[in-house]
Amino acid sequence: MALIVQKYGGTSVGTIDRIRNVAARVKRTRDEGNQVAAVVSAMSGITDKLIGMAKEFGENPSEREMDVLLATGEQQSIALVSLALHELGVPALSVTGRQAGITTTGSHTRGRIDAIDPQFMKRSLEAGNALVVAGFQGITPDGLIHTLGRGGSDLTAIAVAAAVGADVCQILTDVDGVYTCDPRIVPNARKLPEISYDEMLELASSGAKVMQSRSVEFAKKYGVVFEVRSSLNDNPGTMVLEEHPDMENVVIRGVSIERSQARVTITGIPDEPGMSAKILCALGDAEINIDMIISNIASDGMARHSFTMHSNDLGKAQAALKPVLAEISGESKIETEAGIAKLSCVGIGMRSHSGVAATMFKALGEAGINIGMISTSEIKIAVTVDETRIEDAARAVHDAFELDKAPA
Amino acid sequence: MALIVQKYGGTSVGTIDRIRNVAARVKRTRDEGNQVAAVVSAMSGITDKLIGMAKEFGENPSEREMDVLLATGEQQSIALVSLALHELGVPALSVTGRQAGITTTGSHTRGRIDAIDPQFMKRSLEAGNALVVAGFQGITPDGLIHTLGRGGSDLTAIAVAAAVGADVCQILTDVDGVYTCDPRIVPNARKLPEISYDEMLELASSGAKVMQSRSVEFAKKYGVVFEVRSSLNDNPGTMVLEEHPDMENVVIRGVSIERSQARVTITGIPDEPGMSAKILCALGDAEINIDMIISNIASDGMARHSFTMHSNDLGKAQAALKPVLAEISGESKIETEAGIAKLSCVGIGMRSHSGVAATMFKALGEAGINIGMISTSEIKIAVTVDETRIEDAARAVHDAFELDKAPA
Repeated sequence: MALIVQKYGGTSVGTIDRIRNVAARVKRTRDEGNQVAAVVSAMSGITDKLIGMAKEFGENPSEREMDVLLATGEQQSIALVSLALHELGVPALSVTGRQAGITTTGSHTRGRIDAIDPQFMKRSLEAGNALVVAGFQGITPDGLIHTLGRGGSDLTAIAVAAAVGADVCQILTDVDGVYTCDPRIVPNARKLPEISYDEMLELASSGAKVMQSRSVEFAKKYGVVFEVRSSLNDNPGTMVLEEHPDMENVVIRGVSIERSQARVTITGIPDEPGMSAKILCALGDAEINIDMIISNIASDGMARHSFTMHSNDLGKAQAALKPVLAEISGESKIETEAGIAKLSCVGIGMRSHSGVAATMFKALGEAGINIGMISTSEIKIAVTVDETRIEDAARAVHDAFELDKAPA
Repeated sequence: MALIVQKYGGTSVGTIDRIRNVAARVKRTRDEGNQVAAVVSAMSGITDKLIGMAKEFGENPSEREMDVLLATGEQQSIALVSLALHELGVPALSVTGRQAGITTTGSHTRGRIDAIDPQFMKRSLEAGNALVVAGFQGITPDGLIHTLGRGGSDLTAIAVAAAVGADVCQILTDVDGVYTCDPRIVPNARKLPEISYDEMLELASSGAKVMQSRSVEFAKKYGVVFEVRSSLNDNPGTMVLEEHPDMENVVIRGVSIERSQARVTITGIPDEPGMSAKILCALGDAEINIDMIISNIASDGMARHSFTMHSNDLGKAQAALKPVLAEISGESKIETEAGIAKLSCVGIGMRSHSGVAATMFKALGEAGINIGMISTSEIKIAVTVDETRIEDAARAVHDAFELDKAPA
């Protein structure tokens, strides 16, 4: 008998009929001889509706009160899914974030899970119940309701799995698993049977929409094996786990793309300590996430920094940089470029294989695609290209590494 | 500076605009130099919508899960009212039943307040906040969410007022106060400036819709002075408090009516100990509330019991009584009458004045209205009449006691 945590997103519980489907799946999993704790999100649409009501009272509603308001969405779901399980004759209990023993830190609406006391859940599972746990929420040490922000329900599922000692955590979603690339762009993309935490992390931070980085990090930290699979069918999905020797011996696991990027280049910066920090702090203070960072010294002996960000942030970035550059030097200039996209190749095999960058750049070159910036990590090579060519670029690189073919 | 608890029902927070009105009223009360804790219900309609969703999964949903589901209604209200207060520049905090320290006993969906630990509320008030407290909810000693059933928000308000030591508890509702009779029936009914707990209790249990008995009982037990007043205007309402010597020296405080009553009479019961108990237990087990009870001995030496109940319960009562009567005696028979209504005259002055019944019966007789059953308490005389004549009866009795005139 295995102990399985299943996570169902807002679409999966979006209507009465879909809630019935969730209940049927939980029952099936139990009938196969397993214990089940289902972590559920709010019914799709509810959260947006509540946010809409809150915004009637001002554009920046108190985050403490937003937590109180938004946590009701999941609380409704857990009660309804429990009732649907009762209808099928399954003993089921709803479990709020508080009852799940989830304590949090961080600011309101963006909580981080600090600890879980799983006693209530363990006792209730041992008593023969299916549990239906509210995703996305916990309580602060002061006893206030605290939500976990975007992707919070995935995080809850991983954390609950760690706390109750689950054998596996199934993330049930609207995709079949993790693919070598988005199948809407690369039609011969292949579903991966397994992928390592590190690869999943790099893909998540490179635009793959399946899961947020922090949930993957949490799973890696606590060794929670999880599976990304479809809530609509019973096909096996993709197992995400620590890398192991039997893992498919490939160089590149997958390719991801991220659109709507922009580049900012600052020239004419004195080559002195602390200059980069000043620039990056100004962007951080303006809450701009920057992604690729490249620095070097130009022929005039001055430093030159380039970074990428979402193109929506470009105006904000220019405004934030203006006073800093005025302070640094009369020589420094900002140059910007929007309309670019990022292509990333990810794979733990890169560590032991050479020539990956060469293969990638050759494929892009043969497709007539110009490379802008390049940045690398131990298991990733990322480049920027013109946004109009990003799909061609993805297909060319996917082909070059023969990602459509299962490795021998 | 006074500490005022205000209770707003579901209609008062039923739309965004009405929530704004509630916030404005709380602000006005604070601007007059008071501390305020507002107890709010769920937005009108939400509770019924949630019940409707739950019933999709069966007619008798788990009451534990209904509590989890329904408590979200008030949780949404407290957040939204707090945000509306912030919009007006008022520092405000939402307070769930749990944060209010309300612990409960009793079965799910019908909780009773057992105790309140007001520390969090007291601290938050002292810090200068307006509090917005969720009505209708608390937690069980096991930490489960527990709702208080019908009228639960009034009960919360009274209990919060007792716990924080409020100077007054204002029950803001869609009526202006407590009247000598329902003004829709008796157009010259007069709003009472004050009424004693005992009178309010008798009126509540006699069909006056303003408040449920248990909230009044709670207020009496803890000496909470409360005021029933309109949420739509600033008119003074009716103060409900312990009787005192200066209270208007009147015989009858008010007249209430209750429609859709039915009478069940059982004849031919052996005049032996335990017979009445058997009959009443059978009705109690069937969850039928009986109201007036009259027993006497008929000319044949057998006992004869009559009682009234809501006419909706008549069929259930006959079914419940059948086996009991078969067991008691072959002689016993059930006779039923629907289409009756109850008229009650209530007043603490009855204790010291004689002739009240005579005045009441004379008025009914002159109006040509036949009296069915009669029952009395220390401060109430109740009679049943044909339902078609109940409004005439109310007007005749109201006139006979000159309740439209303020006492000298």
